[in-house]
Parts: sequence; structure tokens; C-alpha cells
Amino acid sequence: MSMPQVSLRMASQKAMRQMADRNSPFILDEWYVVAFANEVGRALLKRTVLGLKLVMFRTQDGAPIAMEDRCAHRSYPLSAGTLSGDTIVCGYHGLRYDRAGNCIEVPSQQHCPKGIGVRTIPLIERGPFVWGWFGESSKADPLRIPTTSWLENGAWVSSQDYFDLPGNYVSLHENLLDLTHLSFVHAQSFGTPDYARAPYEVESKGGCFRITRSVVPTRLPPVWAQPTGLHHDHAARITTSEFRAPGLHVVSARFYDANLPVSSQPVYEIRTCHVPTPQTQGSTHYFIVHSRDFALQDSSVTEFMREQLMIAFREDVEVLSRLEDVLARPDPERYEISIASDGPAVAMRRYLFVRAQASIASPSPVG
Amino acid sequence: MSMPQVSLRMASQKAMRQMADRNSPFILDEWYVVAFANEVGRALLKRTVLGLKLVMFRTQDGAPIAMEDRCAHRSYPLSAGTLSGDTIVCGYHGLRYDRAGNCIEVPSQQHCPKGIGVRTIPLIERGPFVWGWFGESSKADPLRIPTTSWLENGAWVSSQDYFDLPGNYVSLHENLLDLTHLSFVHAQSFGTPDYARAPYEVESKGGCFRITRSVVPTRLPPVWAQPTGLHHDHAARITTSEFRAPGLHVVSARFYDANLPVSSQPVYEIRTCHVPTPQTQGSTHYFIVHSRDFALQDSSVTEFMREQLMIAFREDVEVLSRLEDVLARPDPERYEISIASDGPAVAMRRYLFVRAQASIASPSPVG
Amino acid sequence: MSMPQVSLRMASQKAMRQMADRNSPFILDEWYVVAFANEVGRALLKRTVLGLKLVMFRTQDGAPIAMEDRCAHRSYPLSAGTLSGDTIVCGYHGLRYDRAGNCIEVPSQQHCPKGIGVRTIPLIERGPFVWGWFGESSKADPLRIPTTSWLENGAWVSSQDYFDLPGNYVSLHENLLDLTHLSFVHAQSFGTPDYARAPYEVESKGGCFRITRSVVPTRLPPVWAQPTGLHHDHAARITTSEFRAPGLHVVSARFYDANLPVSSQPVYEIRTCHVPTPQTQGSTHYFIVHSRDFALQDSSVTEFMREQLMIAFREDVEVLSRLEDVLARPDPERYEISIASDGPAVAMRRYLFVRAQASIASPSPVG
Repeated sequence: MSMPQVSLRMASQKAMRQMADRNSPFILDEWYVVAFANEVGRALLKRTVLGLKLVMFRTQDGAPIAMEDRCAHRSYPLSAGTLSGDTIVCGYHGLRYDRAGNCIEVPSQQHCPKGIGVRTIPLIERGPFVWGWFGESSKADPLRIPTTSWLENGAWVSSQDYFDLPGNYVSLHENLLDLTHLSFVHAQSFGTPDYARAPYEVESKGGCFRITRSVVPTRLPPVWAQPTGLHHDHAARITTSEFRAPGLHVVSARFYDANLPVSSQPVYEIRTCHVPTPQTQGSTHYFIVHSRDFALQDSSVTEFMREQLMIAFREDVEVLSRLEDVLARPDPERYEISIASDGPAVAMRRYLFVRAQASIASPSPVG
Repeated sequence: MSMPQVSLRMASQKAMRQMADRNSPFILDEWYVVAFANEVGRALLKRTVLGLKLVMFRTQDGAPIAMEDRCAHRSYPLSAGTLSGDTIVCGYHGLRYDRAGNCIEVPSQQHCPKGIGVRTIPLIERGPFVWGWFGESSKADPLRIPTTSWLENGAWVSSQDYFDLPGNYVSLHENLLDLTHLSFVHAQSFGTPDYARAPYEVESKGGCFRITRSVVPTRLPPVWAQPTGLHHDHAARITTSEFRAPGLHVVSARFYDANLPVSSQPVYEIRTCHVPTPQTQGSTHYFIVHSRDFALQDSSVTEFMREQLMIAFREDVEVLSRLEDVLARPDPERYEISIASDGPAVAMRRYLFVRAQASIASPSPVG
Repeated sequence: MSMPQVSLRMASQKAMRQMADRNSPFILDEWYVVAFANEVGRALLKRTVLGLKLVMFRTQDGAPIAMEDRCAHRSYPLSAGTLSGDTIVCGYHGLRYDRAGNCIEVPSQQHCPKGIGVRTIPLIERGPFVWGWFGESSKADPLRIPTTSWLENGAWVSSQDYFDLPGNYVSLHENLLDLTHLSFVHAQSFGTPDYARAPYEVESKGGCFRITRSVVPTRLPPVWAQPTGLHHDHAARITTSEFRAPGLHVVSARFYDANLPVSSQPVYEIRTCHVPTPQTQGSTHYFIVHSRDFALQDSSVTEFMREQLMIAFREDVEVLSRLEDVLARPDPERYEISIASDGPAVAMRRYLFVRAQASIASPSPVG
């Protein structure tokens, strides 16, 4: 019976007690994507975010609105009611709420009682995303929304996708920060055997964690070789994975011919927003926006890359789902031994842990 | 972020601590309908009532019998055994029980040990219902069975229906006591817009809670207009909802032409027994018997009203099912702000709360 | 309301506190069948045994291997990885483990860290079975593997089957030690009405519990009558049920003509290994190997008996599944009144209880 050495296991268990995992409280003082902009319209949209049940819609003047999906009267879900102008009418006893969540009509009585209302979530729309703030509303500073400015920029063309991921958001972040998994999880899609062994540099500051991996020279997988025309075995593939916030991870990659000086040839760049919005402890809204800065007019490239990437991202979803099955079972003996390439992920999980602790200590957002 | 005022929420939470809800203990000292009379026959019927698994059958001389569905020997469900004359033979090791629940045969030994038996539930058959008593059997007083005497009376004709409701019985009672929901839940079936705003009177005494709502003048929905012929917009619709016991709610309604004196014209009356028998905390046997005092010979009226009513009652089942989804999730922040029309329902829930507390305090029925 | 006498129920509840049941801890210091030998090959086999998730395979030189199905790195199931020679490569980040569970490669770094590994379970192959040891590996004494030597013996011919039983292993053992259930559970298959009333002898020593039941004279059911030719009503059927270990129960039966002296006629014998390997508290791997010492060359007899027996054993699986539904619900009032024929089963459950207690007290196998 082989086992990790006792000292290793104990050290791992001690380290884990300072790292966020699926059981960590949600971090409230952050912006999270609650929906793609084009999902929010004149039909009531029901969605659980950070464990909170929300109903969303867009007002007649175009503003996205999110409120708690529970009537203040008898807890009936407002999403089962009707949208009437810019108000929601509860489907049970007809209480009507305005866009600010105030109850403005109780049909069974002439005068509407004062002070009844439901919680609303401050929302801000930016490019393809609707961001929501789950902490104290007085702290909802738009300047803290993670930047994705290239998405509102004609120099890039994008496609978007979504997974209802049956796994937790911490594991998704960890997956994204250690791309050595490309050689194994994505062996049949966009990984290559040399990926796991490629040299890398790490950097972290102020809650950002970045790892840059240089696979040079390499043979690109079809998803990149075909649109760039770099079909040979001396391509360069420089990938940066960056945790920018609990609600945003950006992967960018540059491709070029490693045998030519960069300055004299085209460099192709792609950027993918991986947007993990916690749904419950064990599930995540996984929004994806994939962009490129080349072949901007060619929609067949968009479709080709989107198809290929979805095959790969679906592999991640399967991995994270299997992992969640393990992690969701309580196991007092659990250990996770970290290796060198876990550096950025461990730092990120420590950061999330500290943030999560602070989130508990701060006053409840319901106040 | 709008929210109910803190004082409102705190007052609501304080009030809720004195009101029964899905988590309240069952009230044992009551009669509950365990089955329609025509469900209990010579096949073993398995059903959970007040959390207790029962097996039921009818003896050769016609008496309904209910006993705990668990052999005293190794807990095998008796409902998986066989009915033999007036005895049940366990399907595992063959122990035989008589109609009183006494074990009268152990096949593997010559003499049957004394004192082995399973609990039986006192049953009484009344019209379409079989009522059972779940408290101490010495207190099983038939006089306490709620009266539904019109069901045994040739002046009324009835139809019966059943839902296995995925919601708790307290919410069903509350639904029935506040019919302002007709304008919203039943907007497409038997509700009308004026219903929620109609004047009402309330009355309560000795554990009965009654609300009478007068919608006058009104246009009746087809379910009532068609059989009564009151198709105009000056009909009177006088509805009384009455909580008569934890196991019975009766809704009666009278219809007539509001422009004529009542004495000079026909008054049409319907009465519906809504029978909520708790199954588990979160599910209810919802028996329904609907009766009318007119068009007694016309079975097409029976069928028409039954179809129409079932559409409406199914809407309630959907509402209560959605509500149960919310209520079943533990939420320490939950609040329910009551409005004026909740008066009778709040009084009823306070009454159930007190009864439920008393039920815990009293000696266990298993004794 | 009949009930068992209070004194009987209290005595039963007191007795139950000293008897193993579905909630008892697993007994680790024992050998259990983890798989049929022919299930373990060059494909990774995933299976939960005693609550532990395992991955199994066979090395190139034919040795069966079982290890914990969880990478030491980030807990990803190894069964979702790949078998490469005699090593398993994790499907997430590529850590490679040898047959002893030692991590021998971390692709993202040049040198493999020392001391990383996963637990392996000592395995021994015996005839159709692969046995595994879940206690401390230093105690894994092959001499303690229950003997099934006839299975490796040309004088017997066998068939094998398997059920993923949705019931606990204690109930399966109890089922096997009280065959009075044949008259009821198997009334349509291999039970006969006289079975439950037949005389029996019991014997127990050193953790073995045996009951021998003599049904003489009797009419054999088709499964035995047809292959033996004993179609009359004066057959002898002598059955011994023997609990040999927590992981093995053997039922053997002899059939002959009760009107002739045994010495002057053929005696037909069958032996069935019932192998209950706990999967979780509420589920059991139920391996079955059925053997006979007659008609050795006749494969149609093998198939006939196998079909007939599986009909009967499926009846047990249904019974135990229904029973588990009852036992899995917490019920502080539960009682189980034992009768005379429960003697061996009660003794067996007391023995398992003591063993389970000792299993908790002993040092954890993970050490």
C-alpha cells in the first residue's frame, strides 16, 4: 500500500486550510457577469447567481434590471409572474413592483402599504456583458468592473458561448491558470504534447495572477494552424493566462513563425474571456467570449474557431464535472499535493480565501 | 438596492415565529382523510400519511383497515405481501397479521409468540371519504370528524378528484383562505379581474376561519355562467372560504342575478371540499369533492364543471409546487410581509402553530 | 390500535443496539472480493468498495492492481486517465503512477518530486475472484482469505453472476441465514410451502454461523428436479447456509430420493457462493458463483440452472431493495422483533457489530 509520505500529506492539508475551494463563502464585493446582454430582454429571465435567485428583464428604455426572485408577501417567485411596462406583477396575489424593487400596488386593498419591496442588484452593461454587484450597494463602484475594452473595439471580432457548468468556480479558475492540462485533457483538440513541458513565467500583483507559457517551436493544432496558415512545425505559440478578478479570467495567445523575426511578419492574436460566475457552491455560469484580431471579415473563420474551441472547452467542463463529483463528497482525509506549476493557482486560491474570509466578516448585504 | 424596511422585515420575522409553516410538526389529534372510499378494496393500498407509511385494505365484511406498512419482525413493507381473507401475510418470512394488527402466525415455528403486532389506525367511512385518526387511539372520537353531511344527501350531486401535491398542507390552506389570488393565478380559468378588489367579511371562532367575498355585480366565468345561464354582467358571486379543520376546507359559492331580488329567482350553489391530508413535510394528498345543488340529473354539467375546475385547481397545484421549491430551501433571512387580506390566513396559521406545539407536548401516539 | 407489547419493543430496541445494521462501520480487517477475475484487464475499471473509490487494471504480466481513484495532485479520478504499460497517467495534468501507486512523473517539471503516491489495495486472485484487503496492509495475510477451494477443482462446474444491489450487506447476510423466506419470497421460483416449517439445526464457532434445514420428504422445484430427475414427492432437500466471513456466505444443498438409503443412490450437490462486498452503507456488490458436482459436461444444465437461479436471486434483490428503502429512513422508534429462526442471523449480526466496533478502534488504514 503506497501512499504519499505523511509529511507531504500533512503539509498539503495545512496549505489547503488557507486556500479557497468549493466550500468557501462567495466573495460579495465584486462585479460578476449575470447574463449576456442579449439574454436580457422583455421576457422575465430566471437565474441563480451567488446562491441568490434572481429575475431579470430590460425596461422599455433599455436598462437591464435584476431583483430577488421572491415576492415580499408570500415568497412566490416573481419570475412566474408577468412583466407589465416596467413593473413586475406577482403571479400569486398580484403585488406590483417597480424597477427599483418597490411594491407600488396591492390589488386587494386601496392603498399600497409603504416600505414593502424586494432587493435589486445594481447592474451595468459593458459590451456583451451585464455585470452585477452583490455586495453592499453603496460600494458598487463601476470603476471596479474588470476591463474588457477590446470587446467594444472594431479591431477585434468575437463569438460567445455558455456552459451551465456542474462544477465550482474555484476549480474553473485553477484549471485556467495551469494550462499544462492542455497536453492531457485536450490531447485530441487543441493541446499538443510539448505544452506541458514548455517554459513559463509567472507574475502576480494586486489580485492579478498571470502565467505566460512559450511553446516554441511547435506545430499548431488545426484550430490555430488553419486560420493563421502556420501549418509547419516551427510556429511560436505564446499564451498568457490571467486571473483578473473572481469574475474574469483572460487567456490570450499570439502565434507567428518562430524562424522569422517577429517584426517582419504578421502576429496573430486571440483573446478569450472565461467568465466564471458562481451559481451555487457546486455549479457555475461559464460565459465565454472568444475574440481574434485577424481575418475580421471572414465569418467562416469565426464559425470554424468557435466549433473547435467548444469541443475543447466541453472537455474542460467534463473534467470539472468529474472533479466536482469528488470534491462534493466530504472527506476529512482529503489532500492535494501541489507541484511547481501550481504556483499561480495556489497564490490565486490563497487570495480568494482571504477575500472570502473578509466577505463573511463584512456586514451582510441584506441590511 | 430596494428592500423592505428593516422594521417591516423584523416584524414579519417575529410574526412568522408564531405561525405554522411547512416545518411545523404534524397535528396528530385530528381526523384526516386517508383515502376515497372507492380506493380501498381488496388490493393492498400503500400510502404515506402524516409521514407514516400505511397499508390499507377492506375486509370481506366491508370494513376499511389501515396499518403501519412495516412488519414487526424485520421491517419489510407489508404492502409488498399478500391479502389473505382478512389477514395480511408478510412477503418476506410469512408473518400473518389480523385486521387488528396482531401477529397470529409465524410459519417457522409451531406456536405464534404473543404480543407481536403492528400499529393500526382507527378508520371511519363517511360518504366518499375514509377518515383516519393519528393521535392516541383512546381519543379517536367520531364526533370530531368534520361534517360533510350534504355529501350523503340527495339534494346535491358531486364529482371527486385527487392531486399528489408537491407542496405542504399549510400553504394549501393559506391559498384557500385568500381567494384574491383568483384574479392572478386563475386569470385564464375561473378568476375575474374584479375578484381581488371585492369587499369581504371575515369571521372566526373555535378553530374555524371564514372569509366571505361578494363580487357584485360581475360577469361570471364560463364554468359558472354556462350551467347557471347567468351570462350577463350583473351576476352576483358570493363565495365563502372556510377552514373547518386541519383536514378540511370548504368553499361554497352562490350565484344569482344581482338585478333581481333573491327571493324571486333561483340561487345556484356549489360547494367544494378541499381536503389537504399531509403526506410529508413537503407533500400533500389533495382530495377534492365538488358538489352542486342544481341540474342534479344532468351529467354533462357534472363533466363540464369537473373539467373546468380541474384546469383551475391544477393552476393552484403549480403555484404551490413553485412555492414549496422556495420554502424548502433553508433561508435564515426569509420574511413574509402580511397584508390586510391575509387576516384569516394568519389567524389560521397561528391556530395551527398552537395546535402543532401541543401535538409535540402530548405523549407520543406510539405508546 | 394494536402495537407490539411495550416490553417486547423495548427488549428489541435494546438487542438492536448490539447488532450490526446498515449504519455500522465497515469491517476493514477482512478480505473482500473486489471483482471477478475476468473483469480486471487492460481497461481501467472504476468501482467503489467499502466506500473507497478504486481504479483497477491488470499489469502486462497479469497481476491485478487496485489503487485509490484519485490523483494525489488535484483529486481527479485516475479512472478517467489512461493505462500506459503498467502505469496510469492522470487525465488532467499527466501525473504518472506505477503499479505500486508511486508517482514517477510530473510532466510539467524535469524531476519528479519524491514521496507522492496514491494508496494501493493488496489484491490476491483465487479462482474466479480477486480479493482485496482494506485494513492495514501489514496485516494482509493471505491465509485469512475464505476458502473456496472447490472452485479450483475439476469435480465442480460453475457459473457466475453479479447484482449491483441497492441494499446493505448486513441485510443480505441476514437474508441468507434465514431461508424460511424461500416459502414466501421465492414461492414462484425455487421455494416450496414446506420450507418455512422444516426442522433445522444451527451451529456457530469462530465467526462462522451455520444453519442446516432438512426438507424431507418434499417435491423439488423445477430448478432442482429437472437436472437431478427427482420429480416425485419423496425427495430429500438438505440445505446448509453458512456465513463464513463478512465477505462470504456459502449455501450448499444435497438432493436425493428420501425413500432409498443414501448409500445406494446418487446424491446431487450444489454450492453457491454469495459474496456480499459492501459498496456504500446502502449498496452492495453481490457476486454469485453457483457450482454443482453432477452433469459436469452438460452446458445446457448450466444454463438452465443459471436462468432459474437468477430469477430467484432477483427476487431477493427486490426484497432487499425494498427493505433498504425502509432502513435508510432514520426512525428513532424502529424495532425489529426477533423470532426463533432468527437465532443464527442475530448471532451473526452481534458478531459483525463487535467486529465493526473493533474496526473503529483500530488505527486508520490511512497511516
